[in-house]
Amino acid sequence: MQLSYQVGILGATGAVGTELLALLQERQFPLKSLVLMASERSVGKTTPWGVIKPIAAASLAGLDFVFGCTGKDLAQQWSGAITEAGAVFIDNSSAYRLTHPLVVPEVNALDLHDHQGIIANPNCSTILMVLALGPLHRVRPIRRVVVSTYQAASGAGLPAMAELQAQTAQVLQGQVPQPEVFPFPLAFNLFLHDSPMTPLGYCEEELKMIYETRRILHVPDLAVTATCVRVPVLRAHAEAVNIEFYDPFPVAEARAILAQAPGLRLLEDWEHNRFPMPLDASGKDEVLVGRIRQDLSNPCALDLWLVGDQIRKGAALNALQIAETLIAQA
Amino acid sequence: MQLSYQVGILGATGAVGTELLALLQERQFPLKSLVLMASERSVGKTTPWGVIKPIAAASLAGLDFVFGCTGKDLAQQWSGAITEAGAVFIDNSSAYRLTHPLVVPEVNALDLHDHQGIIANPNCSTILMVLALGPLHRVRPIRRVVVSTYQAASGAGLPAMAELQAQTAQVLQGQVPQPEVFPFPLAFNLFLHDSPMTPLGYCEEELKMIYETRRILHVPDLAVTATCVRVPVLRAHAEAVNIEFYDPFPVAEARAILAQAPGLRLLEDWEHNRFPMPLDASGKDEVLVGRIRQDLSNPCALDLWLVGDQIRKGAALNALQIAETLIAQA
Repeated sequence: MQLSYQVGILGATGAVGTELLALLQERQFPLKSLVLMASERSVGKTTPWGVIKPIAAASLAGLDFVFGCTGKDLAQQWSGAITEAGAVFIDNSSAYRLTHPLVVPEVNALDLHDHQGIIANPNCSTILMVLALGPLHRVRPIRRVVVSTYQAASGAGLPAMAELQAQTAQVLQGQVPQPEVFPFPLAFNLFLHDSPMTPLGYCEEELKMIYETRRILHVPDLAVTATCVRVPVLRAHAEAVNIEFYDPFPVAEARAILAQAPGLRLLEDWEHNRFPMPLDASGKDEVLVGRIRQDLSNPCALDLWLVGDQIRKGAALNALQIAETLIAQA
Repeated sequence: MQLSYQVGILGATGAVGTELLALLQERQFPLKSLVLMASERSVGKTTPWGVIKPIAAASLAGLDFVFGCTGKDLAQQWSGAITEAGAVFIDNSSAYRLTHPLVVPEVNALDLHDHQGIIANPNCSTILMVLALGPLHRVRPIRRVVVSTYQAASGAGLPAMAELQAQTAQVLQGQVPQPEVFPFPLAFNLFLHDSPMTPLGYCEEELKMIYETRRILHVPDLAVTATCVRVPVLRAHAEAVNIEFYDPFPVAEARAILAQAPGLRLLEDWEHNRFPMPLDASGKDEVLVGRIRQDLSNPCALDLWLVGDQIRKGAALNALQIAETLIAQA
């Protein structure tokens, strides 16, 4: 086992890259060196973590891990060079999610075995949901999931978060804002997720939740339907999840399982009607779960509600945990 | 058939009462006279529609219709005096929804027959949803509904809307607001519906959606589960609805039915990923429906999305339509 590691970050100036840098320090990741890379317009900029370098073969030499915090085009363009340089590429984009190990360490760390140098970090909404589905599924298999999301602006990056704030200020001043990052106004509004529409009538974000959940839970034909919605919240996603099992799942048993599940924290104050909210989860590592209840419409189903930081466990933290798990397994 | 009617409004100064007054004019309701009543602190106030009177037997004399725009306590306190005065009481509160005719005119106008003087206006989220469920259910019976709501501040009245705006301004200025109307901050946040929790693990708002949908569709054991959520939006509710039928329901057929259904307007621009948003529906009579798609998780289910003005069709407009329907049926 190595004692320290050379780490590179592709897209070090974005929302996920920035969070990852903070987490490397916060979690005392055994860093030997750090190479920050980003697109041309950021090259040469000085950050508290170092100077931004171009994405280039020369920048990759000697790295042990490279975290991809870019879109899938750049990920696909550079993955070959990264693995040839001997680094493990942990990619946040959707480029490799259906073809390479797709891992939420608390749920399917074993899928890291025999990886071929590329590991995909799942979609943010999927990561949050499988933290709850995984431990329940291990006890009683899941038959069908119906999920509706309440997704923060952060999923579209820092500019989207800034747009929501600026737009909201404009609306409060009686102005009519012109959205630029999002296709529609988000201030005091919401809309179905703006990822590209597919011929199935689902947007790509919804299909990610379906296909990725199946891969992570190892149930290729798991029945899942999703409706993904952007809401005027800054950085934590919420999800209303209806879970049908093959058999009844006593609520008390489900609650006990989720209360002990890694990565989750139960937040249920029934007396005060107090359950997880985005403000509770923002900046936190744990995904908050609550309002676990027997579905009145189906004796074999449960309803629950969960909220998690989209940038942290939904992206940067999970990617870093993948590296930590690889180190521990080595 | 009378040519004009004497109308009273209980709670004329609230969000629903105010909207109802605007609608009476806008729809050219055949008014002979109008009696505005509200709680003591509003008595004597002058509005564009007249002076606010106390809620008292003397105020009720001669009225044909009384619209209840108060909570259920006042509704229960005054319903006897209203019907004894010979008026029909159309009540927006939850007081009579499980015991008296509960009507969305586009869906179950026939339930108005043989009413005993009290007619209940359904819960706002329920009204919006049954406008879509009703016409589908008439063609192929519904087996189960899983709904998640995205509910505006207006459901808690004008003070809640004002609180959301003031709170948002405070957050943008870096302050930490103290909520007063809602139990938790709503600015850039969201929370499970703040109606009282019940022993079933559902809040009252969720149970209203379940029990009232069953009554309006005349299926006493219809399987429905609901998760109700407050979002930082001002006055239109959105709902993600998963509808399971006993048989497959071709999407094209469902779309054609909903496109022609009264009270609904289809808004589906698949090419531009443009579907109903709260800003589209605010201040509008019609409930907007879209993203109708085959549920990938169940061959007998459809997913759809709808948005409607909570104060208008969700409350005041539906109540007024009940009166209009009674007049037309007379």
